[in-house]
Amino acid sequence: MPRRIAIQRSVMAADEKIAEKIRKDLSKRGVLMLNLIGSPGSGKTSLLEWTLKDTLFRSVVLEGDVATSRDAERIARTGTPVVQINTRGGCHLEANLVEKALEGLEMDGVDVVFVENVGNLVCPAEFDLGEDHKVALCSVPEGPDKPLKYPHLFMRAEAVLLTKVDLLELLGFDRDLFWKDVKELNPRAERLEVSALRGDGMSDWVSLVQSWVRAKRP
Amino acid sequence: MPRRIAIQRSVMAADEKIAEKIRKDLSKRGVLMLNLIGSPGSGKTSLLEWTLKDTLFRSVVLEGDVATSRDAERIARTGTPVVQINTRGGCHLEANLVEKALEGLEMDGVDVVFVENVGNLVCPAEFDLGEDHKVALCSVPEGPDKPLKYPHLFMRAEAVLLTKVDLLELLGFDRDLFWKDVKELNPRAERLEVSALRGDGMSDWVSLVQSWVRAKRP
Repeated sequence: MPRRIAIQRSVMAADEKIAEKIRKDLSKRGVLMLNLIGSPGSGKTSLLEWTLKDTLFRSVVLEGDVATSRDAERIARTGTPVVQINTRGGCHLEANLVEKALEGLEMDGVDVVFVENVGNLVCPAEFDLGEDHKVALCSVPEGPDKPLKYPHLFMRAEAVLLTKVDLLELLGFDRDLFWKDVKELNPRAERLEVSALRGDGMSDWVSLVQSWVRAKRP
Repeated sequence: MPRRIAIQRSVMAADEKIAEKIRKDLSKRGVLMLNLIGSPGSGKTSLLEWTLKDTLFRSVVLEGDVATSRDAERIARTGTPVVQINTRGGCHLEANLVEKALEGLEMDGVDVVFVENVGNLVCPAEFDLGEDHKVALCSVPEGPDKPLKYPHLFMRAEAVLLTKVDLLELLGFDRDLFWKDVKELNPRAERLEVSALRGDGMSDWVSLVQSWVRAKRP
């Protein structure tokens, strides 16, 4: 089906131009953008709820979902400005959707744009939204074999977070196998273990975001 | 982007013809085909390992994965004929891949073709593989809000399985909310709760498959 591939490439190229524009505009303002990617239920929204407690940086959030505004409602409760993007069946966010969502937000004084992508370990990894870094989340209940089975995200992520580590022992999760595979796919990625239930690793994660924020400031 | 949509529709139409051909060919032989769909780590392979212990029907398995043959190796250990389909980045199986995989299998005496789709709650719901029924899996650790957030699969499934119910109490999973949303989306779907760890619900699930097998026999 070469024709289909050609058409898809041209559409992706148009979207990549929008992504570059977003990255340039945000960089001029010294704003960091992070693209959070993981399976449904991997803990993306819970990670954000923790992160937004930090007051050393000011955040806005874009919530990507196939349907409903449940995640945006959770974020709104933290007091952080949030825009819900519904893809209406679409399996990933694209830069044109992010561009429209950013237009609705007051960006003065903002340090970080957190984008929570659609829950999906496959498709979102392929689409540049104009972010500085992709952050991959994989939860303990998903099992330690996921990096090799879904390699593209793990190869492209600046940081890999193993989430729900409060379940490590109960589920007999093979943490050595998980991190060995991550290192093989992407030796330079930051590697963190977190639990939104107990708070494990959250200060390390927030420190990492702070270091990225500082690096973006003019 | 109307042009892109038009092209994608024509490709999907070609694939739908292949799906119809698969369904017709298997029906002539009295063979049932089930398309198992759920997030990464929702327990699709573990469900199959249990199911294949049943000796009242003869099965073959098609394993869909972005990469690796780990799941096919697990299935092969049960003694069931299995073909691994690697999508090399693709986020779902398509009928043309299923057609090719079926060519490599001896089908005499087979009652059921189990297709384990790529771990993804979004895209696989859109593609007809020639199956008799889609079976949706959602695991307790994913959280009870998933049906409304990813409605398309739950609307199209003939059966919805809540998996890993051994974790219900520990994780404080709101089972009433989950099933209320499933019923609203799809009142006629069979609803089952299973645990591959403890065996809960497995005999009900196997009975359901047996009833489908009997309905297909000439």
